[in-house]
Amino acid sequence: MDKKYVVGVDIGGTTSKIGVVDMRGDVLSQSVIKTETTVTAVEFIKMLADAIKQNIVKAGVEGQVRGVGVGAPNGNYYTGCIAFAPNLGWAAHESVEFSKLLSEELDGMPVSLTNDANAAAVGEMTYGIAKGMKHFIMITLGTGVGSGIVINGEVLYGSDGFAGELGHTCAVRHNGRLCGCGKTGCLEAYCSATGVARTAREWLDSSTEPSLLRQLNAITSKDVYDAAKQGDALALRIFDFTGRILGEKLADFIQFSAPEAVVLFGGLARSREFLEAPILKAMNDNVLPLWKGKVELLFSSLKESDAAILGASALAWEL
Amino acid sequence: MDKKYVVGVDIGGTTSKIGVVDMRGDVLSQSVIKTETTVTAVEFIKMLADAIKQNIVKAGVEGQVRGVGVGAPNGNYYTGCIAFAPNLGWAAHESVEFSKLLSEELDGMPVSLTNDANAAAVGEMTYGIAKGMKHFIMITLGTGVGSGIVINGEVLYGSDGFAGELGHTCAVRHNGRLCGCGKTGCLEAYCSATGVARTAREWLDSSTEPSLLRQLNAITSKDVYDAAKQGDALALRIFDFTGRILGEKLADFIQFSAPEAVVLFGGLARSREFLEAPILKAMNDNVLPLWKGKVELLFSSLKESDAAILGASALAWEL
Repeated sequence: MDKKYVVGVDIGGTTSKIGVVDMRGDVLSQSVIKTETTVTAVEFIKMLADAIKQNIVKAGVEGQVRGVGVGAPNGNYYTGCIAFAPNLGWAAHESVEFSKLLSEELDGMPVSLTNDANAAAVGEMTYGIAKGMKHFIMITLGTGVGSGIVINGEVLYGSDGFAGELGHTCAVRHNGRLCGCGKTGCLEAYCSATGVARTAREWLDSSTEPSLLRQLNAITSKDVYDAAKQGDALALRIFDFTGRILGEKLADFIQFSAPEAVVLFGGLARSREFLEAPILKAMNDNVLPLWKGKVELLFSSLKESDAAILGASALAWEL
Repeated sequence: MDKKYVVGVDIGGTTSKIGVVDMRGDVLSQSVIKTETTVTAVEFIKMLADAIKQNIVKAGVEGQVRGVGVGAPNGNYYTGCIAFAPNLGWAAHESVEFSKLLSEELDGMPVSLTNDANAAAVGEMTYGIAKGMKHFIMITLGTGVGSGIVINGEVLYGSDGFAGELGHTCAVRHNGRLCGCGKTGCLEAYCSATGVARTAREWLDSSTEPSLLRQLNAITSKDVYDAAKQGDALALRIFDFTGRILGEKLADFIQFSAPEAVVLFGGLARSREFLEAPILKAMNDNVLPLWKGKVELLFSSLKESDAAILGASALAWEL
């Protein structure tokens, strides 16, 4: 029988999403499990395999699944390992042979692994706004800043499978913020949801400018968005600042791989109305003349709830 | 008859080098012509074609040449055009169909064109220190800073043929030097031979520190090297500064494409004894832990006089 379905798994620090997907990108069944971090890797993988099997039954496609695609922090496409992922307890201090172990639990079904941002890029190329594009850079703006780089229609993995860590390129060289990775000035420390919240707190602390944000205790990037919607001047300047820093770095990335487009994805990308103009200005101000106005800035069009599953599942078509 | 020879052509702003090369990378005959810039493109291409024919005769390989590979500023692999190259009078303000025109002058012999830094990368991969490598970044440190990026054993051209303009990524964000491209703070404005000379003049002007360089009128990067060899403290600090800036940017590039190595080439790379340590330190200080100490910094081993011809000729093997 022809195997016309795949499974997509998105492993996050808090929850893991599982979905059965057909060739059109329709999700036939899906579920969410808690990403247990206090158990062993083998225990978590057994729980995940059970959830995958249940979804296959629920979708009524037993025996017709080609394979499983998994997107996970620090997932390595070449080795099938998840190694030293700070947010995944069972892989925080060691390298876990994730693809091999999961495949064994699924009676030998093939498993393909990559990191979450690469999975998002594959999803965008297969089902989303980058469909048909051969050269683009996907930037995921979530808790952190991730990236998936597509060259000649294929994800760039580099010599070791870890290419595309654009969130940890340097955005602010001198007196830059400390990043979660231990370095300073990383793009992620400024242009993630966390980075936006950090900018808000820093700016509120260093001035007495009135702002709707002053009445809040714990500020999130969503709060900054809501304030900007109400015309709050400080919140609007936070998006200008964030967009400028991102646009400056995008210019460097464009000069590296000459893509047709940059695609933005993730929670912070929903603030498009405030981010798009400053990103575009900084991007075009900082590229060589030959690229000015030539590279598209796109925002992901995938349904937010399905996007992670679709991205991971798209990997499995190549199995 | 099997075609066992190729021709390599390196077009520079002042001279153009032509060589006939065999499969081992031995140069059988070569010559240099002036890169006329006041003539028309068609006139220059006729002169170049004559020089190519003479070299083929001199090498005694008539009828055995597979094709011609050309490296030139702003040479585009996809289109075969040289467009808006400031230093080439006949292509400074227009796009010249170089490959097509040269092929016509050579009775239909195939011609492949790319920019000079990409040609250097191909040469290094075919005959040089990057032989057998699938992932590396070539940086040419000459009058300017060029780059050729190799991914999966192939030069990265991107969507438009212009990928790899790393010399124009931003090294100094605020109050950066004006670059020849019109932007400010570009890597090229600091880490080219011209950039080193500029650092020397700036530093001499802004202090009264004694230095061997003070007695010179027009300072070149070679003068800075000679002074450093004699232990001149200011000259040594110029190389530390130059190496640090280059190393910081190399860290960003590594986080983009995860190469096995970075290869340095060109006149300034001959100052290896002063540049290597500060480049390595800054590079390893600015990459994620997973790459610390993992990416090699190599210096081109190709014979300087042959390197440009070999690089361009290597392109022609794929014709």
